[in-house]
Amino acid sequence: MVLGVITVLSGGVGAARLLKALSDETDPSELTAVVNVGDDMVLHGLTICPDLDTIAYTLAGLNNDDLGWGLAGETWRVMDELDALGGEAWFRLGDRDLATHLYRSQRLSEGATKTQVTAELGRHLKLRVRLLPVTDDSIATVFDTEVGELSFQEYFVKHRHGVVARSVTVRGVEQSSPSPEVIDALERSERIVIAPSNPLISIDPILQVPGVRDIITRRRDDVVAVSPIINGVALKGPADRLLGELGYEASCVGVANFYDGLIGTLIIDEADARHAPSIEATGIRVIVTTTIMAERENARRLARAVLA
Amino acid sequence: MVLGVITVLSGGVGAARLLKALSDETDPSELTAVVNVGDDMVLHGLTICPDLDTIAYTLAGLNNDDLGWGLAGETWRVMDELDALGGEAWFRLGDRDLATHLYRSQRLSEGATKTQVTAELGRHLKLRVRLLPVTDDSIATVFDTEVGELSFQEYFVKHRHGVVARSVTVRGVEQSSPSPEVIDALERSERIVIAPSNPLISIDPILQVPGVRDIITRRRDDVVAVSPIINGVALKGPADRLLGELGYEASCVGVANFYDGLIGTLIIDEADARHAPSIEATGIRVIVTTTIMAERENARRLARAVLA
Repeated sequence: MVLGVITVLSGGVGAARLLKALSDETDPSELTAVVNVGDDMVLHGLTICPDLDTIAYTLAGLNNDDLGWGLAGETWRVMDELDALGGEAWFRLGDRDLATHLYRSQRLSEGATKTQVTAELGRHLKLRVRLLPVTDDSIATVFDTEVGELSFQEYFVKHRHGVVARSVTVRGVEQSSPSPEVIDALERSERIVIAPSNPLISIDPILQVPGVRDIITRRRDDVVAVSPIINGVALKGPADRLLGELGYEASCVGVANFYDGLIGTLIIDEADARHAPSIEATGIRVIVTTTIMAERENARRLARAVLA
Repeated sequence: MVLGVITVLSGGVGAARLLKALSDETDPSELTAVVNVGDDMVLHGLTICPDLDTIAYTLAGLNNDDLGWGLAGETWRVMDELDALGGEAWFRLGDRDLATHLYRSQRLSEGATKTQVTAELGRHLKLRVRLLPVTDDSIATVFDTEVGELSFQEYFVKHRHGVVARSVTVRGVEQSSPSPEVIDALERSERIVIAPSNPLISIDPILQVPGVRDIITRRRDDVVAVSPIINGVALKGPADRLLGELGYEASCVGVANFYDGLIGTLIIDEADARHAPSIEATGIRVIVTTTIMAERENARRLARAVLA
C-alpha cells in the first residue's frame, strides 16, 4: 500500500506496536514518529527518554516482551549494585539499556540535540522508520496527585499509577518549540496518525508544544486517531482511570471528545461498535476494527485500517 | 602504635596502598585522607572521582589487582554495549563501578556535597578511614601537551601519559575552597603525611586549593612525605617523566625540591640512600627504608616509618 509520507504522534508501547505494524504494511522509510518527550527525565545524571527508547527497541526487534519495557536479554548488574548502595533503584535501568543513556547524555553534553542523538541511535539500530522527539527543548509532565506533585516516572513507575491525579501539567512547554523536522513532517505528511497512546499524558504533551496543535487542527481531515480505550478499559497503563479523573468519559467516546476538532477519523475496537453512531454525530468518521495488536494478523489489520 | 589523628594528602593507587598499610599499624578511625579531585570528571553525564574511588575500593579490599584500578570481579556489559554504539568507551567503567557513579551523580543533583556523598559511600563500604575530597568545588587538572590541551583522564588514560607535557594547570582552583572538614583535619592532625602519589598532578592540586599550602607550610615540622620516585623511576604512572618535563630532577632529590618548605621529613627508598646527604643539606630530615609496598611486610615497615 503506497500512501506517501505518514507521521505518527507517538507515546510508548502502544505507539511502538502500531509503528511496527505499519512498517510491515508500508515502506518504513515513509514513516515518521513524532515522539513525546514529556516523560523524559534526568536520573543519576543521565538523560532518559523512555518513549523514544521503547519505540526504537521495538522497531529494532530488541524489546523485552516479558517485561513489557526495556531490552530483551537484559542484565541488571549496575542496578543490583546501586540498590545495594541504597541508591534510587526504583526506575530499573538494565545494563544494556544504560549504554543508550550514557551515549545520549555524553552527546547532549557535547552540544548535540536530542533530535541528532535520536538519529544516531536509530542508525546504530538500523531503524528505517524516522524517530523525532517533538521538541529539543526540555519539557516535563508533572502530576498533581493526592500524595502531592509527582514527576511522570514517579507517578507511573514508583507509584505504579495507583494514586488519584487531580491535574496534569507539562512544565516548560510554553517556552518550547517543535523542531524544524517535526514541523516539516507534520506539514508534508499525506496522513497524520495519532497512535493508541495515552491521550492525556502521551499525546497531549505533543499537542501542547506551541504550533503543533494548530497544524493538527488545520489538517484534521488527514488525521486518524486510534482509540487506546477498548470497552472502557486501557490495554496498558492508566489511560482509562486518568480520563475519568480528569473529567472525560473512560471510553472511546471520551477519547473522541478529547480529540474533538483535531481528528477527521477515529478507529475504535469492534467491542465498541455500539458507540460509533454517537461519535459520528460529532462529525468524526469512525472505523470499527480490531485494535488489539497482540496477534500479528490483528496488528496488520489495524495497520491497513490506518492506511486505508 | 598510637599517634593520634593522622591526615594523609592522597592521590590514587600509591596513596591507597599507604593508607591500607597505615590502617594495619594504627587505629584506622584516626586516619583521614584528604584526596585530590583535580582528576575528577563528568563523562556520560556521570561525575567520576577516580582517586576517591581507588582509595575506597582498596581500603574495602575490593580493588582489582590484575587491572591495577577498578573493582575485583568486575563485568563490562554497559561498556561493551556503549562501545558497540560508537560511544566514548576509552575510559573503562565497569558495571559495578558504574553504580558508584550513578549513586554519586544522583546525590549531587539532589544537592549533596561531594564530601557528603563520599561519607555515604564510605559507610556502605564499612570504611573506618575517613575520606575527604579536598574541596567540594569543581576543579580540573589540565595538561598543555605537544598534542594540545588534554584533560587529566585524556592525558592519563586516552594517551596513556605518552605525550610530552609543557605545563599543568588546575582550572578553577583559585575560586575553590577547602571543605571545613579538610581545614579541621589539617589543623588538628598530630601528623600530616604526603602519600607517594604524583607530586605534580596528584598532590599539587591539593596544595593549590587556597589555604591548604599555608597550613602545610606552617606545620612543616609535622609533615612527612614519602617519595614516589625510586632510583629515578616512578613505580606507576608518569611522575618521573613529568618531573623532568616540568623542570625538576626525576629523582627523590627532585621530589625534595618540589616539596621544599612544605615538609620536615622525606622518606626515600634504600635504593636512593646515596641521595640522603644532599637532601638533608636543604634542612629536610631523611628516613631511608623500603618504599615499595607490593609485599605486605614491606608496606608495614613503610607504615611504621611514617608513624615513627
